[in-house]
Amino acid sequence: MLKVSDRGNSMPESPMRKLVPYAEAAEKNGIHIYHLNIGQPDISSPKKALNAIRNHNIDILSYSPSDGFESYRKKLSHHYSKQNINLLPDDIIVTAGGSEALSFAVSCIFDPGDEVLIPEPYYANYLGFATALGVKVVPIECSINDDFSLPANDKLSSLITPRTKAIILCNPGNPTGRLCNDDELEQIRTLAIKNSLFVISDEVYREFTYDGKIHTSILSLKGLEQYGVLIDSVSKRYSLCGARIGLLASKNKDIMRAAMKFAQSRLSPPTLAQIVAEAALETEDDYFEKVKIEYVKRRNYMVERLNAIPGVKCPIPSGAFYCIAELPINNSDDFCKWMLESFSHKKETVMMAPGSGFYTNKETGLNQVRLAYVLDVKDLSRAMTCLEIGLEKYKAR
Amino acid sequence: MLKVSDRGNSMPESPMRKLVPYAEAAEKNGIHIYHLNIGQPDISSPKKALNAIRNHNIDILSYSPSDGFESYRKKLSHHYSKQNINLLPDDIIVTAGGSEALSFAVSCIFDPGDEVLIPEPYYANYLGFATALGVKVVPIECSINDDFSLPANDKLSSLITPRTKAIILCNPGNPTGRLCNDDELEQIRTLAIKNSLFVISDEVYREFTYDGKIHTSILSLKGLEQYGVLIDSVSKRYSLCGARIGLLASKNKDIMRAAMKFAQSRLSPPTLAQIVAEAALETEDDYFEKVKIEYVKRRNYMVERLNAIPGVKCPIPSGAFYCIAELPINNSDDFCKWMLESFSHKKETVMMAPGSGFYTNKETGLNQVRLAYVLDVKDLSRAMTCLEIGLEKYKAR
Repeated sequence: MLKVSDRGNSMPESPMRKLVPYAEAAEKNGIHIYHLNIGQPDISSPKKALNAIRNHNIDILSYSPSDGFESYRKKLSHHYSKQNINLLPDDIIVTAGGSEALSFAVSCIFDPGDEVLIPEPYYANYLGFATALGVKVVPIECSINDDFSLPANDKLSSLITPRTKAIILCNPGNPTGRLCNDDELEQIRTLAIKNSLFVISDEVYREFTYDGKIHTSILSLKGLEQYGVLIDSVSKRYSLCGARIGLLASKNKDIMRAAMKFAQSRLSPPTLAQIVAEAALETEDDYFEKVKIEYVKRRNYMVERLNAIPGVKCPIPSGAFYCIAELPINNSDDFCKWMLESFSHKKETVMMAPGSGFYTNKETGLNQVRLAYVLDVKDLSRAMTCLEIGLEKYKAR
Repeated sequence: MLKVSDRGNSMPESPMRKLVPYAEAAEKNGIHIYHLNIGQPDISSPKKALNAIRNHNIDILSYSPSDGFESYRKKLSHHYSKQNINLLPDDIIVTAGGSEALSFAVSCIFDPGDEVLIPEPYYANYLGFATALGVKVVPIECSINDDFSLPANDKLSSLITPRTKAIILCNPGNPTGRLCNDDELEQIRTLAIKNSLFVISDEVYREFTYDGKIHTSILSLKGLEQYGVLIDSVSKRYSLCGARIGLLASKNKDIMRAAMKFAQSRLSPPTLAQIVAEAALETEDDYFEKVKIEYVKRRNYMVERLNAIPGVKCPIPSGAFYCIAELPINNSDDFCKWMLESFSHKKETVMMAPGSGFYTNKETGLNQVRLAYVLDVKDLSRAMTCLEIGLEKYKAR
């Protein structure tokens, strides 16, 4: 009999994706949905970036080199040097989004049966890439009651086995919005060196840090030069999610040699989007300053509204544009569905990502949701009103 | 100790890639190289396609749906119907090149340790995708002396084990340029049904068939509806190699459900290039007619020149734009390197892909090279002269 692979069957399906049919049905019924469920910002992409292809004179849209255009990698190297990250052009492989870079990193480091440590709650697709490649995710449980900080060193050490090959760190974090502090980076550094673990550091939200806090890259940490594998992307930084341009970078030559073979097997990253991404590097600092001011305004507004709802708890995040909120419910998969299927207020409702999608044990996040503050304050205000009234009606149903 | 995965270490390195430093050195020394080593055509991309993004009014370059824009998939469905291929928009997932489609197909069908049958010589990257996912390639040996036709049924059947899950067919073929005839398609059909094997059919060269021969898609074969997984791409068809737009298509719902989960884990295919690819579907038939006339001219010229060289044998291919030639040498890895490192004629030389890259047993293809007729006849003429003189001098060295 024809059968799909176990790998294909065991690929996780995001609880948020399961909501899409309900969202579509609601929209067909004339309900407006505030999409706080995904990280697609409403911020305009830099004009310089998009204009770079407007007057192109391409005659043949050819392959680029497997590791990306050299001109782009040279500019990236310079760009990183300004952020205290030392990367030569040859330490960089341009990829089809941060997703492909993650997939390459996992392929280079893990064999089937190996284990990866990931602070939990974590970006749902880490589990996808791990499952696709036969790698076991071992969660480092972080609690909303501790503001999602890392547990103590002995707790971390207890998770290590002979199959543990790496840690995946998302900093600033999706879904928590948390920025690692110096103590936590030191914990990671010590753990990695002591146990010979690679650190795959997903820093796609690097620019989005608030309240004067500054991001430190894994590649800037003393002694971690050979351990760090940087994942980056233009998606969030320049609001270029559709470009599908990211990169993998490392000073570790063995990693780069292996990653290059995976890169060659898929020939090359997208050519047009690389032209856009290269131009995006010219984006002025005031673009980010404006964007950050906007995100801080949204964050402050949303977190305040959330914490004002009886029974809701939401730590204030210091990076990215997400937060995890604990709600006075016991099944957010059901609640998020109910908000789309059975609720509306003034013909409006809100779509959120159920917490279970960010936990290995699907029971853990059942009273949590992830909200992305990717809409302006006026929309967030109406969305929070929907949530507030929705929670009351859900309880009373 | 920090160690790269076995998977990363065992990824094959293409013998052709190993030549790149020698080619770069030759070019630095002022030698002009005729690149017959890669499938990057010199044909202009359709103007309509490239113009589609020239006057774009994109403000935010957003994610597309994970399976690609619905408008594009609808037009693809219509496009295929004209080629006697019945595909609904939901039978299609748009991917980052045919490469990603192949990777999804292999992920959906195989678990580590499973086996795939592939007629040999085969496209080198099939081995890459298989290795990355722990799948064993079992070659179906085809001989240049039989014009690379499939062996008899009993030979085919003898390769089947309980771990055999699928056949990968490249039709028309890279590297042989061979188009399967009806008998061979019937062989594949019978083998697949009898042994419950999926048929992953890479048809990216579908339009490039010559001498009045017509391509039959695996999805048009009676009874194979549930077995066929189509891999396609705009790269060669419209000379849009750098777009990185391909697709996976199947009528098998289990395959599509699994493939969609892999597609979701990498979020979406490139947005800009999808706009280009969608516009490319409007390309007039006479574009292909002109291109085919050009390729036939090149093929006829090159194959005639090759067969006129003493000791060279090259079957005339009826599709794609490659051919495999047997040369009077015993190590084409060395010969191809020598042509770049130690030879030039009137400051010119030719770069070819060593045959070993297309065989599981690297000894098998050692007297063969693959040549892509992606240059015009004037250039091919000079390239063939270089090869002819090169072979003489190599023998005499």
